[in-house]
Amino acid sequence: MRPLVTLTTDFGTADGYVGEMKGVLLARAPDAQLVDITHEIPPQDVERARLTIARVWRRFPSGTVHLVVIDPGVGSARVALAVASEGRFLVGPDNGVLSPALIVPGARAVALPTPRGVSATFHGRDIFAPAAAALACGVSIDALGTDCALPVIRRTPEAVRRADGSIEGEIIIIDRFGNAITNVVGLHGGTIEIGTMCLPLRHTYAEVQPGEPVCVVGSSGFIEVAVRNGSAARLLGLARGAKLVVRPD
Amino acid sequence: MRPLVTLTTDFGTADGYVGEMKGVLLARAPDAQLVDITHEIPPQDVERARLTIARVWRRFPSGTVHLVVIDPGVGSARVALAVASEGRFLVGPDNGVLSPALIVPGARAVALPTPRGVSATFHGRDIFAPAAAALACGVSIDALGTDCALPVIRRTPEAVRRADGSIEGEIIIIDRFGNAITNVVGLHGGTIEIGTMCLPLRHTYAEVQPGEPVCVVGSSGFIEVAVRNGSAARLLGLARGAKLVVRPD
Amino acid sequence: MRPLVTLTTDFGTADGYVGEMKGVLLARAPDAQLVDITHEIPPQDVERARLTIARVWRRFPSGTVHLVVIDPGVGSARVALAVASEGRFLVGPDNGVLSPALIVPGARAVALPTPRGVSATFHGRDIFAPAAAALACGVSIDALGTDCALPVIRRTPEAVRRADGSIEGEIIIIDRFGNAITNVVGLHGGTIEIGTMCLPLRHTYAEVQPGEPVCVVGSSGFIEVAVRNGSAARLLGLARGAKLVVRPD
Repeated sequence: MRPLVTLTTDFGTADGYVGEMKGVLLARAPDAQLVDITHEIPPQDVERARLTIARVWRRFPSGTVHLVVIDPGVGSARVALAVASEGRFLVGPDNGVLSPALIVPGARAVALPTPRGVSATFHGRDIFAPAAAALACGVSIDALGTDCALPVIRRTPEAVRRADGSIEGEIIIIDRFGNAITNVVGLHGGTIEIGTMCLPLRHTYAEVQPGEPVCVVGSSGFIEVAVRNGSAARLLGLARGAKLVVRPD
Repeated sequence: MRPLVTLTTDFGTADGYVGEMKGVLLARAPDAQLVDITHEIPPQDVERARLTIARVWRRFPSGTVHLVVIDPGVGSARVALAVASEGRFLVGPDNGVLSPALIVPGARAVALPTPRGVSATFHGRDIFAPAAAALACGVSIDALGTDCALPVIRRTPEAVRRADGSIEGEIIIIDRFGNAITNVVGLHGGTIEIGTMCLPLRHTYAEVQPGEPVCVVGSSGFIEVAVRNGSAARLLGLARGAKLVVRPD
Repeated sequence: MRPLVTLTTDFGTADGYVGEMKGVLLARAPDAQLVDITHEIPPQDVERARLTIARVWRRFPSGTVHLVVIDPGVGSARVALAVASEGRFLVGPDNGVLSPALIVPGARAVALPTPRGVSATFHGRDIFAPAAAALACGVSIDALGTDCALPVIRRTPEAVRRADGSIEGEIIIIDRFGNAITNVVGLHGGTIEIGTMCLPLRHTYAEVQPGEPVCVVGSSGFIEVAVRNGSAARLLGLARGAKLVVRPD
């Protein structure tokens, strides 16, 4: 079967940096099937990329190589990683962006060497893409580098259960639709207090009229605040980090 | 031959929703060749997506599966569809976005069931992508659901021929270049009245100077209003729905 | 091996023009592997596209076909080209966008005919994509058209070495990160004067604090002005065409 290599970057596409990486991948792994996840991570937004990878990496079949280049520390002493976890591989900088795969029991990480002569500004092309191509060609992860015992781990802040049974959480991400996704795991019924609003938890967007706010359990299992057919972020003034309280029924 | 699966959504790519769908597709149809049409349909703009699908769906070879997820009604009672038309397949919500294939004689539509436990907000991942993967693997459309007799059909508003031989039309879409594409089928010569302007129909953009307005027959056979090397929408103040009158020579 | 066809356009994706081209390619070359370079070149920015192609075209393996459609002159008398250079093929308009491959010794260019009945506004679909598909299927470039002796060549303006040993250059491109890439080839040490600033040449971004300006040798070998974890274009007010002076140590 063709090896799958996915790409996630903050490069945009117009400058040709992604094109260079694709060329390197296909020159070294001509049978690889390339799959774009996104190149529209906001520049240097490691946290946003981490959440995107969390959604995606395990959906792909065993053997898939995920190439992830959000790399504000390029050229510094930060380590370059290859990770093996649950049958998938991930390659990217050691800044926490690969955490979703690293926190799984049994995950292994190796530190990739920096060969002489590589550019100081584009390890995506010169270090990460070659390592991803090697993994796609069946090279063992052990052949790529030396064990990395303590890779950087970033975690989503955890919601806090209070003595009165309510849960204190926060908005973790605003998505393209303006939905505000929280860190509170979905429950069967309850009330969400955010800003001056108090909203019941519904089952679907369609239970309210277009333009009205609604709370539902989103597709990753967390409570989200939305406006039906509109942007909750804009219409309700919500942003990353805003606090909320959930009171279960 | 590898089955082709195209993707058209309003998801953007940064949030990872498209990545999740691609993972589901490739986990179930590992030989599929994924082809991005676009993920930049404006959020919930079913009409814009319908026009994009109209341009695209029949250009692909027989057997292609088009996965189309512009789904403001997700979680409501709207039906989920799989369509077979002219040898191609389309999967998406029953909101008119698949009309270009449904209006072809011989088209068939089936309603996809909603399995228990699927998310209420992301049928793209949980219903449409699995159905597209099944079609890509050669599963019969009849095995996916039950006949849908009356799917929602949306049509481009038709231009009206008036008693004096002139044609009343409107602007249907503004494209990325700022070209204003109308619903008036191209003709061999004539004059276009729009706003306070009166423009002759030309053969190509290049017949006027850069920065000047020009009417031509566009690549889908409809008259469009353009500005050579500029944006007609911005420079002439044109928007979707604006009326025009075409007087054939 | 599957033939590779890359796509570079200024079409965006939402209008379906890229989708139409992909359909044409796959209908004619069903085994082709399509690779998006970018569809986000600013409309009609031939120069930006030329620089993107310069970065990308030779990274891909021998046999790759690069389809490049930034075509403000569509419908005019401008020639349509297919180019063979260093084992790769390129197809696109004769406006200089293919220069990076044309200036290589041994490059060959043929002029593609304009068949009757093609659209006057979308040669990407009607002329360039069919030619790219033919090359992907192994058709000889000689079978596609007649020799084009003098294709349009565009070149990056060259930096000038002055009598005192300093080098006068300019900013050639602002990338997505706001890095300002110049036309001055990297050197081992020196000082860059730009606007009212005077910056030493460093080895990596990481040698300065976040938010501070820094000059480094970028991944194509040219000096660039950056701000660590920020946008040099915005923070330092830099734009394409701005002049600078480099004084080697």
